[in-house]
Amino acid sequence: MAGDEGMSGTLYGVGVGPGDPELMTVKAWRLISTAKVVAYLAANGSDSTARGIASPFLPDDVREIAIDMPMRTERAPAQAAYDTGAAEIATHLARGEDVVMLCEGDPFFYGSFMYVHERLSAQFSCVVVPGVTSPVACAAVMGQPLCKRDDVLKVLPATLDADRLREELLTCQSAAIIKVGRHFAKVKNVLSALDLITRATAVTKATQDDEVIQPVDEIADDALPYFTTIIVRT
Amino acid sequence: MAGDEGMSGTLYGVGVGPGDPELMTVKAWRLISTAKVVAYLAANGSDSTARGIASPFLPDDVREIAIDMPMRTERAPAQAAYDTGAAEIATHLARGEDVVMLCEGDPFFYGSFMYVHERLSAQFSCVVVPGVTSPVACAAVMGQPLCKRDDVLKVLPATLDADRLREELLTCQSAAIIKVGRHFAKVKNVLSALDLITRATAVTKATQDDEVIQPVDEIADDALPYFTTIIVRT
Repeated sequence: MAGDEGMSGTLYGVGVGPGDPELMTVKAWRLISTAKVVAYLAANGSDSTARGIASPFLPDDVREIAIDMPMRTERAPAQAAYDTGAAEIATHLARGEDVVMLCEGDPFFYGSFMYVHERLSAQFSCVVVPGVTSPVACAAVMGQPLCKRDDVLKVLPATLDADRLREELLTCQSAAIIKVGRHFAKVKNVLSALDLITRATAVTKATQDDEVIQPVDEIADDALPYFTTIIVRT
Repeated sequence: MAGDEGMSGTLYGVGVGPGDPELMTVKAWRLISTAKVVAYLAANGSDSTARGIASPFLPDDVREIAIDMPMRTERAPAQAAYDTGAAEIATHLARGEDVVMLCEGDPFFYGSFMYVHERLSAQFSCVVVPGVTSPVACAAVMGQPLCKRDDVLKVLPATLDADRLREELLTCQSAAIIKVGRHFAKVKNVLSALDLITRATAVTKATQDDEVIQPVDEIADDALPYFTTIIVRT
């Protein structure tokens, strides 16, 4: 939040919500539909989920910065991609143009926006527009409360090891296990061992056209799509 | 999700987000701005926060069902109020009129909508529109990520006892302590004992006009407003 704001543009980190374009906020819609420049991550150079969600509202003549993100476990290529993307965004900001970065869900909830934010926030004005996250979107499409009264709710990345997952699940009333993907077999084993498997529901692409809702104990596969969240009511 | 849907109306549980009316979703705005009947909780018969957030978009001729909610620790008076409110909502639904229930934040994230939903969902069609929750709203106004990569995020009601709060805070990277209010002194003690007090920020009424953001170690008071969330990055 520094720099000569009279001259420079503002970087907006905008959550576009879980999938249904109508589930972005009015503020996100306003910023996107009047944007001159938008930015987003394009995994391995392919389509961007965030851009897809925003696409009904993108102006025809909007300038697009697609940050080509190599999807590997090593960090260095990703860091280099963020460097390149942030530099391109900075060029526009320095010219006095606002840039709207499109983020799935919420920008600061396990979002990659932070890597752009940490590169630019010292120099430019940054505004974050929060969005609807996947755990509450899952609860909505399941038609069941996520958490109530004095419940402890935990958000647990499926990348955690089995022991850690087990310990955390033992001491909460509600959990959202995110980034399930290839970790599904491990998660299923932990849920079975805790006798929680019948209390778990897997939701893939909540609120999107190809949404899938499945009781975990009915899924034979050992992997699920990355954008799968498992909701557990213990 | 039963009943003769051709005849009956639909109950919409609509999250209006954390406070700034622009932070409701486009879907919430559409449903509210075209509503014939809205319902909301009015604590002790006074103003409703959710109605206040929605008020810029309420049609002039909308019919309002204010569920007068006695704010006491006993459960019976609240249950009676939900019974009365649900019955009034049911009268409209049975006539074929849709009812939009306004909910602060998200309807299924520690929301009282569940008490209406559990009374009506067997008989009437119910649709839940998820909303922006307070933890992500706090992160946005603080300008700091709530959680990243493999972080464990916990949402902890401040009503938990000190031992439980301490144990949960020891095993996470990020926490949102909600419903702080009169429990602030206890929370402050726990954070001090864990040497986390300098890593905690209290946000009251995030995104509202009277929002307050304070480092916890600079707050002398022993109580804070109920709508205060403490974000801890451990």
